[in-house]
Amino acid sequence: MELLEGIRTRRSIRKYDGRPVSREQLIEIITAGIWAPSGLNNQPWRFVIVQGPDWKERLAAFTTYHFIIEAAPACIAVFLDREAMYHEVKDHLAMGACIQNMLLAAHALGLGAVWLGEILKNSAAVRELMGLPENLELMAVVAVGHPLGKASASQRKEQQKVLLKEL
Amino acid sequence: MELLEGIRTRRSIRKYDGRPVSREQLIEIITAGIWAPSGLNNQPWRFVIVQGPDWKERLAAFTTYHFIIEAAPACIAVFLDREAMYHEVKDHLAMGACIQNMLLAAHALGLGAVWLGEILKNSAAVRELMGLPENLELMAVVAVGHPLGKASASQRKEQQKVLLKEL
Repeated sequence: MELLEGIRTRRSIRKYDGRPVSREQLIEIITAGIWAPSGLNNQPWRFVIVQGPDWKERLAAFTTYHFIIEAAPACIAVFLDREAMYHEVKDHLAMGACIQNMLLAAHALGLGAVWLGEILKNSAAVRELMGLPENLELMAVVAVGHPLGKASASQRKEQQKVLLKEL
Repeated sequence: MELLEGIRTRRSIRKYDGRPVSREQLIEIITAGIWAPSGLNNQPWRFVIVQGPDWKERLAAFTTYHFIIEAAPACIAVFLDREAMYHEVKDHLAMGACIQNMLLAAHALGLGAVWLGEILKNSAAVRELMGLPENLELMAVVAVGHPLGKASASQRKEQQKVLLKEL
């Protein structure tokens, strides 16, 4: 898939056809995330793959969008390691770059993914569920699967509304 | 350029050969940024293109890495519109996704770009220089140009160090 086209055609995919996602594909998605840039190259991202049906069910209980996690063959929970941080805002920006690489990689692999953020309201509970130490802060859960049906359309503001000035 | 390859081969480019970057290319980079996902699709990103030599010089004065802004034919200042925000962390993550799309787009166009973050220490001063209202918060300056010489190598932690668990 061509890069610029991939950026333009990526959509949030919330319905999956039930086919499994291979571990190799999940590693490819994580590897894309790892290649994001970070301030001072501190690479503050950490990942947990969730595929076991029981684990998915437990994770799903922490979000209103439980049906997405239940339907997706795999999820990747993305954490910020606060022990690796150097600047609150810049580390969050780097984490966003990492997650975007993951979404683009899933799209390039012919998979569909969605960035789940509402679950952050239960960040601590998810960390405890997974038996992770307190320095790990949940940033997102990325649900991944083979897309079912067509992706819904998406809209963006016109360029004139976001390009404020040319100096 | 193939998407996964583009993610893996993108590097921070800090030296440029002096050739100009077209407005069309800058718009293409911004458009890629705009197609990032955001929570509730709130699209909190705003952009200012800086190409005029005088403007670049004024902007450069706000960072230790002034020589990069001086050498780059164009910069794009990326702002978060705090009036469009809905969640501090999630909006910063979305801004990171936007900036990553911009860096990848520059790479796909055969250009080189670097994400400048140190300038955030002068966020308010940059906003004032550009005559922007207080709701706009500088997130990054992306310097863009035609790469001079080979990009330096970059390292990432081994997968085992960042993939914490498989559940």
